[in-house]
Amino acid sequence: LHTDRKHHHQHYLHLYYWVKLLSLSFLVVPHFSLPGGYEEYSSSRAAGMNGNGPTKLVDPLEDPVPGVGTYEDFNTIDWVREKSKDRDRHREITNKSRQSTVALLHSVSDAFSGWLLMLLVGLMSGALAGGIDIAAHWLTDMKGGVCLIGFWFNHEHCCWTSNETTFQERDRCPQWQSWAELITGTSEGAFAYIVNYLMYIFWALLFSFLAVTLVRAFAPYACGSGIPEIKTILSGFIIRGYLGKWTLIIKTITLVLAVSSGLSLGKEGPLVHVACCCANILCHLFTKYRKNEAKRREVLSAAAAVGVSVAFGAPIGGVLFSLEEVSYYFPLKTLWRSFFAALVAAFTLRSINPFGNSRLVLFYVEFHAPWHLVELAPFILLGIFGGLWGALFIRANIAWCRRRKSTRLGHYPVIEVLVVAALTAVLAFPNSYTRMSGAELISELFNDCSLLDSSQLCGYKQVCSDRPAGKGLYTALWQLALALVFKMLITVITFGMKVPSGLFIPSMAIGAIAGRLLGVGMEQLAYYNHDWFIFKGWCSPGADCITPGLYAMVGAAACLGGVTRMTVSLVVIMFELTGGLEYIVPLMAATMTSKWVADAFGREGIYEAHIRLNGYPFLEPKEEFEHSSLTVDVMRPRRSDPALAVLTQEGMTVGEVEALVESTHYSGFPVVVSKESQRLVGFALRRDLLISIDNARKRQEGIVSASQVVFTEHAPSQAPDAPPPLRLRGIMDLSPFTVTDHTPMDITVDIFRKLGLRQCLVTHNGRLLGIITKKDILKHMAQIANRDPDSILFN
Amino acid sequence: LHTDRKHHHQHYLHLYYWVKLLSLSFLVVPHFSLPGGYEEYSSSRAAGMNGNGPTKLVDPLEDPVPGVGTYEDFNTIDWVREKSKDRDRHREITNKSRQSTVALLHSVSDAFSGWLLMLLVGLMSGALAGGIDIAAHWLTDMKGGVCLIGFWFNHEHCCWTSNETTFQERDRCPQWQSWAELITGTSEGAFAYIVNYLMYIFWALLFSFLAVTLVRAFAPYACGSGIPEIKTILSGFIIRGYLGKWTLIIKTITLVLAVSSGLSLGKEGPLVHVACCCANILCHLFTKYRKNEAKRREVLSAAAAVGVSVAFGAPIGGVLFSLEEVSYYFPLKTLWRSFFAALVAAFTLRSINPFGNSRLVLFYVEFHAPWHLVELAPFILLGIFGGLWGALFIRANIAWCRRRKSTRLGHYPVIEVLVVAALTAVLAFPNSYTRMSGAELISELFNDCSLLDSSQLCGYKQVCSDRPAGKGLYTALWQLALALVFKMLITVITFGMKVPSGLFIPSMAIGAIAGRLLGVGMEQLAYYNHDWFIFKGWCSPGADCITPGLYAMVGAAACLGGVTRMTVSLVVIMFELTGGLEYIVPLMAATMTSKWVADAFGREGIYEAHIRLNGYPFLEPKEEFEHSSLTVDVMRPRRSDPALAVLTQEGMTVGEVEALVESTHYSGFPVVVSKESQRLVGFALRRDLLISIDNARKRQEGIVSASQVVFTEHAPSQAPDAPPPLRLRGIMDLSPFTVTDHTPMDITVDIFRKLGLRQCLVTHNGRLLGIITKKDILKHMAQIANRDPDSILFN
Repeated sequence: LHTDRKHHHQHYLHLYYWVKLLSLSFLVVPHFSLPGGYEEYSSSRAAGMNGNGPTKLVDPLEDPVPGVGTYEDFNTIDWVREKSKDRDRHREITNKSRQSTVALLHSVSDAFSGWLLMLLVGLMSGALAGGIDIAAHWLTDMKGGVCLIGFWFNHEHCCWTSNETTFQERDRCPQWQSWAELITGTSEGAFAYIVNYLMYIFWALLFSFLAVTLVRAFAPYACGSGIPEIKTILSGFIIRGYLGKWTLIIKTITLVLAVSSGLSLGKEGPLVHVACCCANILCHLFTKYRKNEAKRREVLSAAAAVGVSVAFGAPIGGVLFSLEEVSYYFPLKTLWRSFFAALVAAFTLRSINPFGNSRLVLFYVEFHAPWHLVELAPFILLGIFGGLWGALFIRANIAWCRRRKSTRLGHYPVIEVLVVAALTAVLAFPNSYTRMSGAELISELFNDCSLLDSSQLCGYKQVCSDRPAGKGLYTALWQLALALVFKMLITVITFGMKVPSGLFIPSMAIGAIAGRLLGVGMEQLAYYNHDWFIFKGWCSPGADCITPGLYAMVGAAACLGGVTRMTVSLVVIMFELTGGLEYIVPLMAATMTSKWVADAFGREGIYEAHIRLNGYPFLEPKEEFEHSSLTVDVMRPRRSDPALAVLTQEGMTVGEVEALVESTHYSGFPVVVSKESQRLVGFALRRDLLISIDNARKRQEGIVSASQVVFTEHAPSQAPDAPPPLRLRGIMDLSPFTVTDHTPMDITVDIFRKLGLRQCLVTHNGRLLGIITKKDILKHMAQIANRDPDSILFN
Repeated sequence: LHTDRKHHHQHYLHLYYWVKLLSLSFLVVPHFSLPGGYEEYSSSRAAGMNGNGPTKLVDPLEDPVPGVGTYEDFNTIDWVREKSKDRDRHREITNKSRQSTVALLHSVSDAFSGWLLMLLVGLMSGALAGGIDIAAHWLTDMKGGVCLIGFWFNHEHCCWTSNETTFQERDRCPQWQSWAELITGTSEGAFAYIVNYLMYIFWALLFSFLAVTLVRAFAPYACGSGIPEIKTILSGFIIRGYLGKWTLIIKTITLVLAVSSGLSLGKEGPLVHVACCCANILCHLFTKYRKNEAKRREVLSAAAAVGVSVAFGAPIGGVLFSLEEVSYYFPLKTLWRSFFAALVAAFTLRSINPFGNSRLVLFYVEFHAPWHLVELAPFILLGIFGGLWGALFIRANIAWCRRRKSTRLGHYPVIEVLVVAALTAVLAFPNSYTRMSGAELISELFNDCSLLDSSQLCGYKQVCSDRPAGKGLYTALWQLALALVFKMLITVITFGMKVPSGLFIPSMAIGAIAGRLLGVGMEQLAYYNHDWFIFKGWCSPGADCITPGLYAMVGAAACLGGVTRMTVSLVVIMFELTGGLEYIVPLMAATMTSKWVADAFGREGIYEAHIRLNGYPFLEPKEEFEHSSLTVDVMRPRRSDPALAVLTQEGMTVGEVEALVESTHYSGFPVVVSKESQRLVGFALRRDLLISIDNARKRQEGIVSASQVVFTEHAPSQAPDAPPPLRLRGIMDLSPFTVTDHTPMDITVDIFRKLGLRQCLVTHNGRLLGIITKKDILKHMAQIANRDPDSILFN
């Protein structure tokens, strides 16, 4: 008996240290996972007091044992219980509020804590995003040169400060010197070019080295875009530390470095992760959110909206992005709060004014020519391109990431990043369109040519009205075509490296290039063929009928849509991004086409593909379950398996229960009236059982292995010399979800999705037959889709 | 035994005729409720053939009896079953598609039928909305005068046709004559005024009389805004004919008449109803949607978005309106389709171009001055006003409607409408702001004063930059204040009359008046107190710092928000309506304040209040269930009630089953293994039982009252001389939802909401204990809120 206890004890200690270790390394999350009482108790045990500490008679029915009702890392939460717990809490506060003024104030502050939290999330994320923008801008410019007035000025700032610039040449001023000028004294000639080239590569390598080293050393979770993991977390999974303090700090710093290094990545996805980290950390200020996993996920959903809101200055697009793409459970309350937080964040960002144009809009465009119905054809063509590119990108990127995981490539992340950064820098520098940052490139491609514009893209022979292409434009087109090929290839291997990397900007850049090329093509076609019947009537000579910038915008939306499969949110983001409320129809046509085309090659977007690659337990809410299996085919135990491990509501001893728990690895056990009747009473979680028994052995007088474990309401009569029973009704879930064995799997999947279940019991004619978990369902779905069911790693 | 059958027979015929009658009067919906087979069979029975018709051996397991699985009028659907049915259908089509090319084509067309349907809904609703706009515009102008070129021209059109008008006086041309001019030959003097006044009243009375008579004579469901009923229908309720052909026709016509009559109502809410009617009718073209109540509701959700999209030219606002305010079940697929349909509709409307400005935007504004942070104070003040007004309006309107229902007032709807119309016309004519239509008023109030503006509202002493109020403005302010009081009072008694009536425009008008008044006040305050510290710095003399039009816009949003409790969708609608993407923050601040203030007085919006007034079974998805009851407290039977009526899976005869069904009024019966064990097997619906037994008696050889009813998979052995058993496993739901008696009610309510259940069985330790229905829950909720539980009328 003693070994039995000791063995269990050790097992438990093991677990505890593991959790502790994880918590320590990420510092932020532990306080809610291990509330004070439990921690203290555990450390006293670890100090060898072994149950001899102060014992107290605790009735588990009245005072919940600390730790009961919490979750382990890499586990799925039970949404229904969590929400119910929160309602209990709320009810208690409301009831108390009638008794005293202090309680009333507490109740009011509790009601407004959600809004306050949103305000804080908005402010913090907005401020961080502003900081990231400014820092990234500065470091990006650093690759080209330095400001003589002060090295902390970026190019634009540096020349603002100087008074010698005219509006036309606002990016040329003597205070800003390129590295060649600084070192060789001249900015002309081959030598200067080579110096600039080498300095560009040097900075790129330095920044990317710093980024990858910081990520590896301090916060491995800070790499990637973070959206796949956030989607999984929002669906009810627990990854401790993923949204912690260190992740936030390191991700913020390395994001700046990665963006500045010139790698083909954006800062938009990671900003969502940063906003979610902010939200998670701020949640700790409010008991309501600290202690409840479901409530916290509501805040995280709103934070995802905030992330996009600050990334693009698109509050409504952000809310829709969270709704359409990221969130799992999105009640109306969350919609309102998301909107509020997104607005606060956008407003904060505008106050910081990192772009210096005091607009929320990132790529403001003003097109003068309306679009014509005939143009829908090229727009749809762009949609098809976007869809094809999206499907291709997902396949190629996933294949590459799988190779990284399975071969030795994955062992050298630093070298990989350095090689890619060097390759990017070497190939990008000679072409002015790849040398500039992704956002600048998109901005230039979206812009319509005005009379004052000196960019190569506007190298027409004449700019007003009729615009035959000039030599400058032809050069630009060549360069753009090369940039397109380069961007397409490099983005595939960049996304998924061990640095923070977003996909939005690279995808949009690729689409914008393709769109601009098509747009200029259409424009020239119309110019040289005014009399074609399709151009007749709306594109008469002298009229400015085709806007290549609009094509770039549509192309950007199409490519981003193909990769992420967003639709409504994408259109809204695009028009918030550009201020072009009039171009909903072209954008919509392109994104819908893109989605349809991409879906024909595979239903998953890039984020879902990465979730599957990582084996997270994510039950896709968009996909319908189409197979005709019944629950009985999917549940455990299968016909050949041993019978289901159950507890009886009375008659089992503590030792028997412990032996059962030890000998299996299940996360929970159904409680039945008796093994013969198999009538279901409730469900007890493994973790709760272990913690409660452990606690009772230590604090409750006379609980030994021979004590009876009782789940009934009233203790049964037993021999007078028997040890006192251990009453565990308090930890039993009295309302376990059940379905019958004949329930079609599509209904069961629906129930799991909509209610956010972790497990469900299966009955036949009122008798307990088996259990079905989220993992079982995911494995079954993988099997149907001819994938490896063992790729689902977690429960 | 024979009487037994006959009694049942008559009972059944009764039901059938009732359904038939209802169907006939609305003509549209019957075809899916009574598919051919069943109808034929019923009529042959009605003709006295009494079971002597051609008999056929039908195995109910193989060929479902027609009528089984459909619903009666005023009943709640079972979402889970409907969705499962659709998935079965889809699976069948997919499986077949591998066999032949025709089947493959069928499968493809089935997959795209949803999008095609959306396209059709968009086109039809857009076209209808365009027609309504044009007709309403014409009839509204008719109240003032007539066009000499042709009476079918409206005022603006009439003067367009004439060439003699300048831009300045584009609404004055000789071709358009007021009634006074036409009758007395002059438009000057008191007599002419009186003639115009009388004609105005005459037309108002005529239009409103026509409207109310048409509604009463042909389609009683065409009155009101329709949104409360559509909300209820979307939550899973069936109201036959509410979305039928006649309702559509009559609502379209009477909406034009009601709007033109000058009553204080808008056409926006009814347009949602019109769009839903279109969608429902178009659903009949596609089997997928005709036969499935859940799929049809997805289409209706999208149609609600279309309605708002055409009402305001705000496609994104429409989608969000459907999501936030109307829909119950809104999966992402519906989001995409809604967006597509809303876009098509807006595009169609734009092509029709009813406003003649070729903009989607209804009240286009262009403000030049940005808003200042200090202005948030008056904006929040407007929010408070909007919230107070919303709460007050809902109380007053519900009290008035309740009085109409309970007193003799409700017996004279025609007189009521005429009296209100006369009152409105008499009081509205003298004041130019109430004489013009609501939309015109709002448009005028939103507009900023430009140099060219000749309206009274712009009666400043000088218009450019500094604007001290002039005499014209003071008059306008007085008139506006009177208009505000008048609108507030008349709207309370208008909404809910037996004519189509929307709330959006009147609410917005009230808010816009209040906002404009405050805006002008602020402006004058700033003008005369340039040196106050709050105005210093941003409102220096000579600068145009306060825009009264913006205040009107914010006020309109606040009042509409207070009445309907919309937030995000409202802000999006407002900025799509006005094109003012820059004013999200003021709009948001006002709507959030308005919602908070109004919620403090009562959580219900006007639509929920009307749903409750009508006793519809609507389970509010926004509201949390906060009471701590358990399911056992709410379920039936209560402790004092007789035991639950159950069927056993074998051993009952047809006669016994019929007797049980006859003697109760329950909609369904649980099937148990035996009365002693109370172990649940499944659930059989009353309607299905009746239809199947009836069908079997007629078509199946040897089914008499003594036949055994068998729900098991294999027929039990029975005496050789016994009549053949009636096997009804096919109609039994093998996967009824169950919860345990200890489940907290908040979880049960959550399950009902999220899965869209109609009933759920309650078990205790694996034994069947009772049943809980949506109605039980609603009654319980009413009881908790100290309302009459019997106000819930339907199941």
